[in-house]
Amino acid sequence: MTSHNSLTLLSDFGLTDIYVSVMKGAIAAINPDITVIDLTHQIPPQNIAFGRFALMSAFPYFPMGTVHVAVVDPGVGSQRRAIALAVGYDSTNPTGFLVGPDNGLWSGVFSQYPIIAAVELTNRQYWRTSEPSRTFHGRDIFAPVGAHLASGVPLEQLGEAISPETLVTLEIPVVQTETLEDSTTRITGSIQASDHFGNLVTNISGMVVLNREWSLLVNKVTISGKQTYSDVPVGELLALVGSHGWVEIALNGGDAQTRLSLEWGDRVQVLVQNNPR
Amino acid sequence: MTSHNSLTLLSDFGLTDIYVSVMKGAIAAINPDITVIDLTHQIPPQNIAFGRFALMSAFPYFPMGTVHVAVVDPGVGSQRRAIALAVGYDSTNPTGFLVGPDNGLWSGVFSQYPIIAAVELTNRQYWRTSEPSRTFHGRDIFAPVGAHLASGVPLEQLGEAISPETLVTLEIPVVQTETLEDSTTRITGSIQASDHFGNLVTNISGMVVLNREWSLLVNKVTISGKQTYSDVPVGELLALVGSHGWVEIALNGGDAQTRLSLEWGDRVQVLVQNNPR
Amino acid sequence: MTSHNSLTLLSDFGLTDIYVSVMKGAIAAINPDITVIDLTHQIPPQNIAFGRFALMSAFPYFPMGTVHVAVVDPGVGSQRRAIALAVGYDSTNPTGFLVGPDNGLWSGVFSQYPIIAAVELTNRQYWRTSEPSRTFHGRDIFAPVGAHLASGVPLEQLGEAISPETLVTLEIPVVQTETLEDSTTRITGSIQASDHFGNLVTNISGMVVLNREWSLLVNKVTISGKQTYSDVPVGELLALVGSHGWVEIALNGGDAQTRLSLEWGDRVQVLVQNNPR
Repeated sequence: MTSHNSLTLLSDFGLTDIYVSVMKGAIAAINPDITVIDLTHQIPPQNIAFGRFALMSAFPYFPMGTVHVAVVDPGVGSQRRAIALAVGYDSTNPTGFLVGPDNGLWSGVFSQYPIIAAVELTNRQYWRTSEPSRTFHGRDIFAPVGAHLASGVPLEQLGEAISPETLVTLEIPVVQTETLEDSTTRITGSIQASDHFGNLVTNISGMVVLNREWSLLVNKVTISGKQTYSDVPVGELLALVGSHGWVEIALNGGDAQTRLSLEWGDRVQVLVQNNPR
Repeated sequence: MTSHNSLTLLSDFGLTDIYVSVMKGAIAAINPDITVIDLTHQIPPQNIAFGRFALMSAFPYFPMGTVHVAVVDPGVGSQRRAIALAVGYDSTNPTGFLVGPDNGLWSGVFSQYPIIAAVELTNRQYWRTSEPSRTFHGRDIFAPVGAHLASGVPLEQLGEAISPETLVTLEIPVVQTETLEDSTTRITGSIQASDHFGNLVTNISGMVVLNREWSLLVNKVTISGKQTYSDVPVGELLALVGSHGWVEIALNGGDAQTRLSLEWGDRVQVLVQNNPR
Repeated sequence: MTSHNSLTLLSDFGLTDIYVSVMKGAIAAINPDITVIDLTHQIPPQNIAFGRFALMSAFPYFPMGTVHVAVVDPGVGSQRRAIALAVGYDSTNPTGFLVGPDNGLWSGVFSQYPIIAAVELTNRQYWRTSEPSRTFHGRDIFAPVGAHLASGVPLEQLGEAISPETLVTLEIPVVQTETLEDSTTRITGSIQASDHFGNLVTNISGMVVLNREWSLLVNKVTISGKQTYSDVPVGELLALVGSHGWVEIALNGGDAQTRLSLEWGDRVQVLVQNNPR
């Protein structure tokens, strides 16, 4: 087998144990030439919301046809379905494939890309074993199925077709947009993630502030909308469009999360002046 | 050189420093096409028992002929031997190769798989340098030797044959089995590892509880034997056969280690009813 | 594209977020066959001195022609230049290529290897997008440029040639050497890094103590110069030449940093007896 696609792995397994490595062993046993890339394995344990946001944010930066395998799976061993999806705009050339539990983990990606096809993973021929562990479908089902997909096995061979409408969607606070009396636009969203630097990422798209004067309001603190960290003095808060395209809160030379102590789902408001700069 | 096997790395080096990366540099300098997989680099510093258990648990999930290089090596620079082993059931097609210090790290794997051949690494032609660092044999001896093995160099060229009986074995508390008066079987073992989720792994094989009613006793607490996490309510302890095939203690939706505070070597007992379910 | 070199990545991004993975996605989109090796992503945030030392220490262990991409970049989005360098002794066959910000991160490597050529990255054809993020040049400029270099694009096509004299150099405390009245040599240097084991690495080359009796003085404590950890009893401090070639302070079976609590830049002195052992 010489042709292959890239394959990414995301989980809440951490890097201390051997769980991630044995998934890679299962992949290498099928096709050692697959380029395997770790998205992250430090999703907080069983936190589907963080996993969903990481997958949605990373998805656009991988080559056409990349297979994404994700395992944040508190329902492993219960009745939750195991699924694979093809998503994108060209049904003969999917942007990517998604393999994992049907628990909302994928709902960020398919909120942004159309679903081309969806199957439930029922064909045990593509599993590592026809009697998988009750607690580790990552190793026994998801990684092997991903490796077969990345090696050219067609999606429809992996199991029975299912209707995209039946897929589990994680409910997150909806982004709301209003126009105020002074013609300012007010967008209300929420905190979705904080990163290693303490930057706080919202679910408000950076598109809404493009070429506009804007500010952000959180916990009664008003923060100016800027272009990059050094647009404010060291030690000051700023709002900016982060590298994944979302409105973020940052602290130049420091850690905004430590300063503001916000949590997942906390409400933020963006105020946009409707006269081009 | 186009043919190659997969190669795994395990160490206590952590991921903060460049030690792991320069081992990979030494491998790439010999054969950049080897598929290198990290088992884990977060073995507690110099803890051979944890390294032994991780290697034994991960070994079965890799392709035939995979080379495993492991460096938990408190005796580096002393008289401990550097070794390479071939293990498996078919002497012309080993299940895997093991490269590292002769300090007991491999004794879990060779308690489960026969040793086909063993050599002491005395042939400096396959080292990175004939004058290796006194403190970093991982980079200068083990990783290069592993890369040559994974590229097809025969084991016997790496040094002088040694007798498998002379290899260092790590003594761990023996698992003991007794039949009680009521025909219950009592198996006494010990805690061998705790994982990132707080699951506690014992050295009692899951085979002993297959299709039986069973329970586990630790610190005078009795825990029911179950199939998967969701067989008990959230917040309750359960015992189950974990994904590596060992009896484990878990807490549905939580962290069993935080609840029970057990340590490596702590005694556990499994009680099995001898009537099939 | 079948020919390729190895490519290393170093950053202060940590492994919790997806930043590292999307750099790898950008590389795979250009050439999925590049062997990508993580140097480390746990440089303390924005700490150019630690990044510089890690790059200088790891550089010699990679194959000829390896491309090193590093992103410790507090000035991203400001006027600091983006650069690529070729270094080594043979202008037709560079030892390695360096890609990243011009902020001193590379000055350790080019203190040890001559610069063959230097360019400012101005040719947007080799970027991921001609409109890069203001805050994530790693993904949009450095990783793609590195992938093109590793795939055979000549350095001079990446941008305009610049003079090596104009490159930013990080000033670190200079190592000073004196000869004392009793003909002892005293070398004064400083702590440059501490590793995962608590070993403390100085900027004094191990060459100065080769085949000599020596000791190290720090905070009025005198520590004997030895060959390896087990040359002193467990629990005792020793000085030795570490695996990267620098004088280090270690504690046999323990953590020298916890014992001594030294910081980056703290002064250490090595005293060398000038009669061969």
